[in-house]
Amino acid sequence: MTKRTKIVDLLTKSEINKDYILEGWVRTHRGNKNVHFIALNDGSIIHNIQIVVDTQLFSEDFLKPITTGACIKVIGTLVPSQGTGQKVEIIAKEIEIYGTCDPETYPLQKKGHSLEFLRSIAHLRPRTNTFGAIFRIRHHMAFAIHNYFNSKGFSYLHTPIITGSDCEGAGQMFRVTTLDLYNLPKTEDGKIDSNEDFFGKETSLTVSGQLEGELGAMALSEIYTFGPTFRAENSNTPRHLAEFWMIEPEMAFYDLNDNMDLAEDFIKYLVRYALDHCKDDLLFLNEMYDKELIERLQFVIENPFERLPYTKAIDILLQSGEKFEFPVYWGCDLQSEHERYLVEKHFKRPVILIDYPKEIKAFYMKQNDDGKTVRAMDVLFPKIGEIIGGSQREENYDKLLNRIKELNLPEKDVWWYLETRKFGTAPHSGFGLGFERLMLFVTGMANIRDVIPFPRTPKNADF
Amino acid sequence: MTKRTKIVDLLTKSEINKDYILEGWVRTHRGNKNVHFIALNDGSIIHNIQIVVDTQLFSEDFLKPITTGACIKVIGTLVPSQGTGQKVEIIAKEIEIYGTCDPETYPLQKKGHSLEFLRSIAHLRPRTNTFGAIFRIRHHMAFAIHNYFNSKGFSYLHTPIITGSDCEGAGQMFRVTTLDLYNLPKTEDGKIDSNEDFFGKETSLTVSGQLEGELGAMALSEIYTFGPTFRAENSNTPRHLAEFWMIEPEMAFYDLNDNMDLAEDFIKYLVRYALDHCKDDLLFLNEMYDKELIERLQFVIENPFERLPYTKAIDILLQSGEKFEFPVYWGCDLQSEHERYLVEKHFKRPVILIDYPKEIKAFYMKQNDDGKTVRAMDVLFPKIGEIIGGSQREENYDKLLNRIKELNLPEKDVWWYLETRKFGTAPHSGFGLGFERLMLFVTGMANIRDVIPFPRTPKNADF
Repeated sequence: MTKRTKIVDLLTKSEINKDYILEGWVRTHRGNKNVHFIALNDGSIIHNIQIVVDTQLFSEDFLKPITTGACIKVIGTLVPSQGTGQKVEIIAKEIEIYGTCDPETYPLQKKGHSLEFLRSIAHLRPRTNTFGAIFRIRHHMAFAIHNYFNSKGFSYLHTPIITGSDCEGAGQMFRVTTLDLYNLPKTEDGKIDSNEDFFGKETSLTVSGQLEGELGAMALSEIYTFGPTFRAENSNTPRHLAEFWMIEPEMAFYDLNDNMDLAEDFIKYLVRYALDHCKDDLLFLNEMYDKELIERLQFVIENPFERLPYTKAIDILLQSGEKFEFPVYWGCDLQSEHERYLVEKHFKRPVILIDYPKEIKAFYMKQNDDGKTVRAMDVLFPKIGEIIGGSQREENYDKLLNRIKELNLPEKDVWWYLETRKFGTAPHSGFGLGFERLMLFVTGMANIRDVIPFPRTPKNADF
Repeated sequence: MTKRTKIVDLLTKSEINKDYILEGWVRTHRGNKNVHFIALNDGSIIHNIQIVVDTQLFSEDFLKPITTGACIKVIGTLVPSQGTGQKVEIIAKEIEIYGTCDPETYPLQKKGHSLEFLRSIAHLRPRTNTFGAIFRIRHHMAFAIHNYFNSKGFSYLHTPIITGSDCEGAGQMFRVTTLDLYNLPKTEDGKIDSNEDFFGKETSLTVSGQLEGELGAMALSEIYTFGPTFRAENSNTPRHLAEFWMIEPEMAFYDLNDNMDLAEDFIKYLVRYALDHCKDDLLFLNEMYDKELIERLQFVIENPFERLPYTKAIDILLQSGEKFEFPVYWGCDLQSEHERYLVEKHFKRPVILIDYPKEIKAFYMKQNDDGKTVRAMDVLFPKIGEIIGGSQREENYDKLLNRIKELNLPEKDVWWYLETRKFGTAPHSGFGLGFERLMLFVTGMANIRDVIPFPRTPKNADF
């Protein structure tokens, strides 16, 4: 026996009366003259293993530096626990201290900390039960996404992060440059000479991989992206990040119905995967943060999503008798309060709204024959509101070009996008899922800064 | 029957004499008075399906616009092929043209194109056999990476893309800003006031997720990153990209030997996965670009990697009698020619070099007792040279801080990194694999711009 056993394996597939090597961080250490108890955690599972230490084998002096946060190695025998609270425990034979942890300065003591405080120590918060649980769930959700698309024959496509075009208009962009800001090159007419910049032109961080994703779909049929996207909006809210991860599948030969079928199947798969693979972590979050969490997850996978046109949704809202903060009228962009009314009060299940007014949707969405609406779809969820946005894409070259001109978008930036409609165009569709929105839904957390390891927000790029 | 069948499924799990719906792009279209043959591809597999068209059912006028690149839907019956070159074919009953493709302007005609030309039409090149194969392999390699780590209990950790620190010194960085370059805010002493920037300080695109990855490992034990990284070096070579993807596992409780074991097992798993899941695409690339490709892949998985200290490697090189362009001496940074000599001529297998001089390695590597070398490891591959770089990390707070001071690194940028050595430090290790380096090795392609969908290089951020 020379390798450590992870605590998750020790608790799920080990043998009583065998010896094991454990390595991890001390959560608590208490004891009396005869016996000490160390709760050890290694991040592989939310549960600790209790180490029972006989003070005849280990001196008080030796045990003293084993305080909360210290890192140790333990060799010992697994036995049924004599105490309550755990089924098994380890009787220590050898202990090695890897790293001590000064109780005077270590910020993570036993007592509870506010989530806000923990954000200020994002380098240490993964050591807490809460963030251990959240980041394990985050892993499982990311893997489930890849697993889902892989099993369906989609290709994962890496779309570029640095982009020279700003056509989607999804938000404010961050500029990317190597120019010396103290000595900006200028053209003859006094403008900043972007020819001198690294890429020979002005570049920014992408707000979406969709347009390039479509290029992939028009060759490989079914692709998805999963990468970071950026918004430079000065939004200091619990729902906005400057840097976040998006999943964007794009599929040739899918119409809007196929698109809705995929979105519903996909998200139900993810929620089911969480329930199947993250039960202990979800139970913890359910207990500590959101008593309706698991019920809500179950509810989503058990009920078909309601599908209806935007126009009908407006009628329902107008006839609801509810007092909304924002006025409801045909053509308005639905607010969270409207979306949640539809989902939580009216239909009591997730809702997919389609056929939105073209004025409130992006240029690339397929135009309906009514001349007013486009083949958009938004998937609305309880507590979250919009979790997925997508559409059938406009595959007609002339219609797409007209829309680009109507909106005064820089045509020269998207010649390549237009060419897919010129050379063998095909009906196709896609959607985007904000990974952190999914994480909010699956974990029940209220602040998006708590579901990403190192949040980037206005005035904050620490760690 | 209302759904299309992908060609990959048609060719691998379909029934003769059944009807199928196929949708895809025309690769070739030829024929005579009586019968036409359309080779159709949908990107799901490198092979086309031959559509046999009876001109008594479809008029010449109807068939005329079905040229190379056009997108069509076909309903027809699967039958054993009467010709050579394919086992089965489809007898067309119905054909719908989704999108035509003007032969005068479509750049991808039947004839071969140079890889260089294809880079200039990166929006269309996934429709070629070569790039279809490469991007399918890229998908499978990405999935294999997630699958490998997931099955071993590692957590996928999203480290930040935008960073406020530049400590690793791995290369030139891109600045990220929302400042108005025409109206830069200045402090009283005339400096640019980064307090006014989006994040309240100077920020850049990350060159590596390692430091943040270590934070995850010191809580969850075993993590990996897989995300984009950036270098603003003006390197116009077949081996450099300004934007590329890296995989960086970090593991608590791993020493350098564990690290080497993991790296070797990992990369063998990936190569084996490629051979198992991408056979047709690899055969195509083997035939068209690199006749030794599959042999080389087999070779890597069948042979144990040679492991030896840098100092021994220097001796071998000095005694080799080879004429190298760059001089060999203890302390020199090995060049590609040196690495390839060791791998291809001396050991004739992949090599892992360890214990490099500290001067040519990063500050965070564990210092050996000799005071001269660090616990670094580089995995060297045939044709590629270094494919993985890693090390055991310095877990001793004082040693790490001294090294940071010796190198004049900005200590204030990495207080959080240092704190992991203060609070429960643990022996730990990790490594980085450049995803495009892996792709070069697995596909046998020679230029890194051909293994990423939309390459970013100096003066080029198209698409």
